[in-house]
Amino acid sequence: MTPDDALLALAHVVEPGDERIGRMVDSLGPEAVIARLRDGARGDGPAQGLQARLDAFDRARAQAAARDAQARIVLRDSPEWPSQLDHLGPARPFALWVVGGPHLRLAALQSVAVIGARASTAYGERLAHDWTASLADAGWTVVSGGAHGIDGAAHRGALAAGGVTICVLASGVDVAYPRAHAALIARIADTGLLVSESPPGSSARRQRFLTRNRIIAALTRGTVVIEAALRSGTTSTANAAHALNRPVLAAPGPVTSPMSAGCHQLIRDQRAVLASQWGDVVDLLGAIGDGDGDVDRAIPPAAPTDALTHGQRLVLDALPLRTGLALDAVVRESGLSASAALACLGVLTAAGLAEQRGDTWRAVRV
Amino acid sequence: MTPDDALLALAHVVEPGDERIGRMVDSLGPEAVIARLRDGARGDGPAQGLQARLDAFDRARAQAAARDAQARIVLRDSPEWPSQLDHLGPARPFALWVVGGPHLRLAALQSVAVIGARASTAYGERLAHDWTASLADAGWTVVSGGAHGIDGAAHRGALAAGGVTICVLASGVDVAYPRAHAALIARIADTGLLVSESPPGSSARRQRFLTRNRIIAALTRGTVVIEAALRSGTTSTANAAHALNRPVLAAPGPVTSPMSAGCHQLIRDQRAVLASQWGDVVDLLGAIGDGDGDVDRAIPPAAPTDALTHGQRLVLDALPLRTGLALDAVVRESGLSASAALACLGVLTAAGLAEQRGDTWRAVRV
Repeated sequence: MTPDDALLALAHVVEPGDERIGRMVDSLGPEAVIARLRDGARGDGPAQGLQARLDAFDRARAQAAARDAQARIVLRDSPEWPSQLDHLGPARPFALWVVGGPHLRLAALQSVAVIGARASTAYGERLAHDWTASLADAGWTVVSGGAHGIDGAAHRGALAAGGVTICVLASGVDVAYPRAHAALIARIADTGLLVSESPPGSSARRQRFLTRNRIIAALTRGTVVIEAALRSGTTSTANAAHALNRPVLAAPGPVTSPMSAGCHQLIRDQRAVLASQWGDVVDLLGAIGDGDGDVDRAIPPAAPTDALTHGQRLVLDALPLRTGLALDAVVRESGLSASAALACLGVLTAAGLAEQRGDTWRAVRV
Repeated sequence: MTPDDALLALAHVVEPGDERIGRMVDSLGPEAVIARLRDGARGDGPAQGLQARLDAFDRARAQAAARDAQARIVLRDSPEWPSQLDHLGPARPFALWVVGGPHLRLAALQSVAVIGARASTAYGERLAHDWTASLADAGWTVVSGGAHGIDGAAHRGALAAGGVTICVLASGVDVAYPRAHAALIARIADTGLLVSESPPGSSARRQRFLTRNRIIAALTRGTVVIEAALRSGTTSTANAAHALNRPVLAAPGPVTSPMSAGCHQLIRDQRAVLASQWGDVVDLLGAIGDGDGDVDRAIPPAAPTDALTHGQRLVLDALPLRTGLALDAVVRESGLSASAALACLGVLTAAGLAEQRGDTWRAVRV
């Protein structure tokens, strides 16, 4: 069994986001983990379940299923793999199933998640549509989850502007969920991308929505929450982005609207920056490494650090190349507030200019 | 000439907020400054203007004018003087003209400024009315500027709940401005208070609105901005409150409303905390020294520090009694973020538990 075959098998048998298996793979390599699982060396409950799934796994059938779904399988470390997903650490996917023309890694380089409530209001849908149309027009790839409400409006806005939009599904790429969005999801596949870390045929189970949300957060430079109820699934994606130190923005709305209450809470708790226009998104997430994804660009891209904001430059200058610096030290060295420094670290990390190890950050030589 | 007569004369002849004269009074005392101004010892332009005004000042006529306006004159350091105005330093008023039954110092102890755009929307007026009615119902004195739009709605909400509301005027207390609010201002005087630092008969001049705004900010524990256009007079009051380290809250609204744009900017710049319900105001400003103003209270008031939030207690514990501590040190000692520590310092200072000297804070023994 090759390493690639082992990763493919793991992608079929391990539930998304399983950090325990992820850590084993990181330390032993995929083939050794497969061998252990086959041997039943770890005889506890979960491993036994995995052993049974592994026995049922058939490589040829898996590849045929991908072909039938018109999907390509993008394994970890393959050229199309978006390396920003590696920030998920041991919880990162073993593989992604991808449907659609654009190159996933390039399309995701300058991407933003635009997400929100399923039970959205006309106000929120209008915002989602208008902002994503403008973002798409400005060259941003809009990533969302294909759900009713804000997600659907976000995909539609990007499509209306002729932009690339990526739908990250909690089901397999051949299972349109929700059913009512089958036509929208087919339209996305025409010009954009469908992505899933579950094999074709997988249904959208509750746990998979949560693990899917971390993919949306990790794939993008930042997340924009248009509408969210208190304690909602949208808040889970926002928290995932926040945990990855990716900037989160939230649109305010009338305080009388329950669908804005989650946004207001994120802003008040300083887990999100207030965004009142789409330009705020570009101001916060923008500019870094803009040349990278723009393969048609006639002018050679500038140095990736040229487009840094003043604050990002202060933080980058504060980071050593060898040893990591804890947040406190970054705050001290940069003179920024802790929240501003964290936001800058998130952008620098997403841009590949900085690297997080545990609780510390170091600069990456570019 | 007694010190009181000298303060009264200064209140008539010096423009509100004149820090130069204020510093002279702080170092020489009011009588000496009056004597200097009379002698024309400072022969430069502004002092000559003051000298002419001083020659025209007549103590008996001034007192008659106050009587005619049914106003009492509250001098610095008199029992009814709200000592929180002293945080304005040399820019604090020499005297206030006050109309109405309540005791100004006691009424202002648990007070909140609720202010906003003149060109308000129905959404903002509804919020202002509902929040001030609830705040008044909870025992808060609502302070505003009597203007069209949000100010008027704030006064009306407090009146509707049978609460005390204070209107701080840029004109004299006998000059209803705006004219269309003459009946509202008369209603406020029936159960609440009219306050001005300009003598009766003074008109509402442009500069006096700005100096008036600092009184609203300094009189209250914090300021709530309901609606504000970008770069508006409302923003000036919010900035005055921010400069005094009094907490500022702002209500969000639809991003499509220009009247919410100023609020969104204050929140995004972290000059205001997002407030989505009136309870947020109480949570941030509340509880400190609640017993002090409640003269009818049957249960003896608790120690003023009993009602501190956890963060406020951390900050207070960090403050020494003798030497002041700079903000950086407060942040380090309390473990709070800089903005949270500043907000706590503002509340503690407004409650008389801490004292600011230059860039440092120290605890006040209570």
